[in-house]
Amino acid sequence: MSELTNNKGLSGNPPLEGREALFVIKIGGNIIDDEAKLSSFLNDFANVKGRKILVHGGGKLATKLATQLGVEQQMIDGRRITDAETLKIVTMVYAGYINKNIVAQLQAHNCNAIGLSGADGNVIQAHKRIHPTIDYGFVGDVDAVNANLLKSLLEQDTSVVLAPITQDKKGQLLNTNADTIAQETAKAMSALYEVHLIYSFEKSGVLMDADDDASVINEINPASYKELKEKQVIFAGMIPKLDNAFAALNSGVTRVIIGKAEQLEQLIEGTAGTAIVNL
Amino acid sequence: MSELTNNKGLSGNPPLEGREALFVIKIGGNIIDDEAKLSSFLNDFANVKGRKILVHGGGKLATKLATQLGVEQQMIDGRRITDAETLKIVTMVYAGYINKNIVAQLQAHNCNAIGLSGADGNVIQAHKRIHPTIDYGFVGDVDAVNANLLKSLLEQDTSVVLAPITQDKKGQLLNTNADTIAQETAKAMSALYEVHLIYSFEKSGVLMDADDDASVINEINPASYKELKEKQVIFAGMIPKLDNAFAALNSGVTRVIIGKAEQLEQLIEGTAGTAIVNL
Repeated sequence: MSELTNNKGLSGNPPLEGREALFVIKIGGNIIDDEAKLSSFLNDFANVKGRKILVHGGGKLATKLATQLGVEQQMIDGRRITDAETLKIVTMVYAGYINKNIVAQLQAHNCNAIGLSGADGNVIQAHKRIHPTIDYGFVGDVDAVNANLLKSLLEQDTSVVLAPITQDKKGQLLNTNADTIAQETAKAMSALYEVHLIYSFEKSGVLMDADDDASVINEINPASYKELKEKQVIFAGMIPKLDNAFAALNSGVTRVIIGKAEQLEQLIEGTAGTAIVNL
Repeated sequence: MSELTNNKGLSGNPPLEGREALFVIKIGGNIIDDEAKLSSFLNDFANVKGRKILVHGGGKLATKLATQLGVEQQMIDGRRITDAETLKIVTMVYAGYINKNIVAQLQAHNCNAIGLSGADGNVIQAHKRIHPTIDYGFVGDVDAVNANLLKSLLEQDTSVVLAPITQDKKGQLLNTNADTIAQETAKAMSALYEVHLIYSFEKSGVLMDADDDASVINEINPASYKELKEKQVIFAGMIPKLDNAFAALNSGVTRVIIGKAEQLEQLIEGTAGTAIVNL
């Protein structure tokens, strides 16, 4: 941890005296869809020293299965409208196939891990989204994260792998955005740990030029974020990701990094990716 | 616990001085396929006092999904031959859909529960079945159950819901018979608890006449088991179930009961079902 606290990456909230570091790492869909990249990423994840939580998205597998089963998929602003059949599919794919394969691979790397949906141990409670004009179906917005359960697992030297399926404590499973799960988990765990939130995906970070993976912006603060949005350097899917990042920082998360899954070690060291900072 | 120890059901191994009771309850496929029966069973399970583990099978959902996806299913002696595509299906259905819906329903009944596959926390390690003549595919035979992890969850007042998917610690998930999972879990937990193993399914117990649900045999011991097999009163699918039950008793499990899922309370009390005893 001490090498981290002196690092450029650590420019979010000040490190918390005496608190142990916890890495909350989100892995994006494009990596999950690529067997070789996922395998390599999981090897890197297994090698991350210290407490860690992996949050995974769904990738294209759910869409593919829906097509095979003839269940039509409707997307609004990149969010899947989740009818009952689609909920069944995402529960099977995210909490079943993807989650258990990730955990089995981590076991093979001698990284003890436990895969959870939000229903397990009531770890992520949510409510069905209420929206004035759009019926998102069985989509959940997070109410609470059971930080104590996560802590008790982490302290048994077990990493946690979270699938983006939550529940409303009334028996209803709900589909929830994985970025949001990562952010809410990071926020809740900030009461107990010095939390480093890492969004890893297929790009090297937030880019000045979307077509040039070398054009990584090293650091974004609220003022530069505003400017980058005005200039439309940052747009579309990156906006909710960054809004999430700032919300996390404002709720006690120590630092947020966005970067390439293949560079996990450097993202953690603070030598790659985009650091989101409050100052 | 004291009302149990004086009960007719408790005729297996003697109760263990000072050990807490643990109920390992297997729920069969026919109950899982019936939404109303499952819901009622889960309500009863939530009301069972004390430590408890639920082991569920798969029911017809996996077969149905395989048919929809055009994946041909091959069964030998009631065991599914598990090719790569079938493994994907059972992982999705058992560890995803069924497991998470059961857990979400238990949360609604204020029964905190955590759903695990054998990969999670390395809770059930297995090896791919080696058979001289039949290639079962990705079917696992159990090597070890992580009793300490289960104990730590149970002691946080969390029930555990086990899906019949295991792993080989080399990254390979494996399909494993749920009766076997229940038996191996009961055996492993007997080192720590006074274990009551309950196989609950659609019938009232082991029957003298398979067509008469009122013809329950109250108690079976090794001598009467031999006789019942010779007379072909016990045959087919009931034989591995009873072999499992005796194996469990011989490995420290306190008692084994086979009976109707709708009578869970009475099965636990020892006032319904068939008691399998060693004496």
